[in-house]
Amino acid sequence: MVNAGYDIPIEISARHVHLSKSDFEALYGEGAQLTYIKELSQPGQYLCKERVDVVGPKGTFENVAILGPFRPESQIEISITDSRKLGIKHQIRQSGDIKETPGCTLRASGKEIQLDKGVIVAKRHIHMTPRDAIRLKVKDNDIVCILTTSYERSVIYADVVVRVNKAFKLAMHVDTDEGNAFDSAADPTGVILPLYDTRQYSLDKWKEELLAGISR
Amino acid sequence: MVNAGYDIPIEISARHVHLSKSDFEALYGEGAQLTYIKELSQPGQYLCKERVDVVGPKGTFENVAILGPFRPESQIEISITDSRKLGIKHQIRQSGDIKETPGCTLRASGKEIQLDKGVIVAKRHIHMTPRDAIRLKVKDNDIVCILTTSYERSVIYADVVVRVNKAFKLAMHVDTDEGNAFDSAADPTGVILPLYDTRQYSLDKWKEELLAGISR
Repeated sequence: MVNAGYDIPIEISARHVHLSKSDFEALYGEGAQLTYIKELSQPGQYLCKERVDVVGPKGTFENVAILGPFRPESQIEISITDSRKLGIKHQIRQSGDIKETPGCTLRASGKEIQLDKGVIVAKRHIHMTPRDAIRLKVKDNDIVCILTTSYERSVIYADVVVRVNKAFKLAMHVDTDEGNAFDSAADPTGVILPLYDTRQYSLDKWKEELLAGISR
Repeated sequence: MVNAGYDIPIEISARHVHLSKSDFEALYGEGAQLTYIKELSQPGQYLCKERVDVVGPKGTFENVAILGPFRPESQIEISITDSRKLGIKHQIRQSGDIKETPGCTLRASGKEIQLDKGVIVAKRHIHMTPRDAIRLKVKDNDIVCILTTSYERSVIYADVVVRVNKAFKLAMHVDTDEGNAFDSAADPTGVILPLYDTRQYSLDKWKEELLAGISR
């Protein structure tokens, strides 16, 4: 069959950290700069040479990647599996929405800082340009279902939020738990599955109906 | 709405080991017995006091739970996340199907044995009785989709195999990756979602159609 451009690359994000300039300087010294190593899939985002230890009440992850550039507020993105090891209650949030999230301790170069918020489990999402959105018939903040097939372990992800921005490149981002819940091939892709109209219907309602023996 | 008994408890299995009598005795000494601690959800299965270290080329998990009773062949059940840490290539298999699976080293009480096979990632499955199967309109070895809703992270699992046996108790088993890919509440449940007839249709075919712009 013809591929009409509806497949969406799926990228698996391991735990990582975005830092504010002031938090970075508190660890690495005043005037310290992020050292660029390589570009990431989203334009302008890059992996840094510097690393930090993320410390929770029950455990630590050493040498966690810092992604540049600096952000207005520091944000630590982990999986639910990671949250159990750290002993930090998980909060599923969109990037940037860190109000009332738990904090943690960061360590690097012999220094330590305490963050009072910023630890999130990223809500799964799709980055795309306005052009992609038109082609895929969605708009910013739509919630869609994504079907991904794999040997013995296909999954349909519900609750996937669409993020549209001229600066984005088409890619769905999931964390390592989500990525390992299907058996990801070398270059996994997903496709939007128009299961139901999220504006008029919800998966919860569907589940309720099925539990009551109603099959649509 | 009335709950017509269609909801299926979802249980998350952490990594664990089933041992043959001879492998257990090789570690714990001739005539050694498994020490019962507590019953598990499937009748006759129980958690043991004894534990083993599971050792792979790249990493080790210490004090992994042994589930009794003895089985004809030893079997080590891990998640894909675990397989990466151990450095063992993962194979998704049904329990008992360990032909041509990777092996590992097991350590306990100062002894060590080398298994040449038995490490699997369990294919997600539902245990049920014949009575459950009639009520849920499925049969042994059917492949079904299971819908589970959770805040911000609902999932539809495809490729779920149905296992029917008088000795079973109704429960879907997923591993920790799968369990953390949705935001499991205290007592999560799923429901069979009759998305398509797996005997006449496949999710792969559906994905192909969607990629070609065909919406059913």
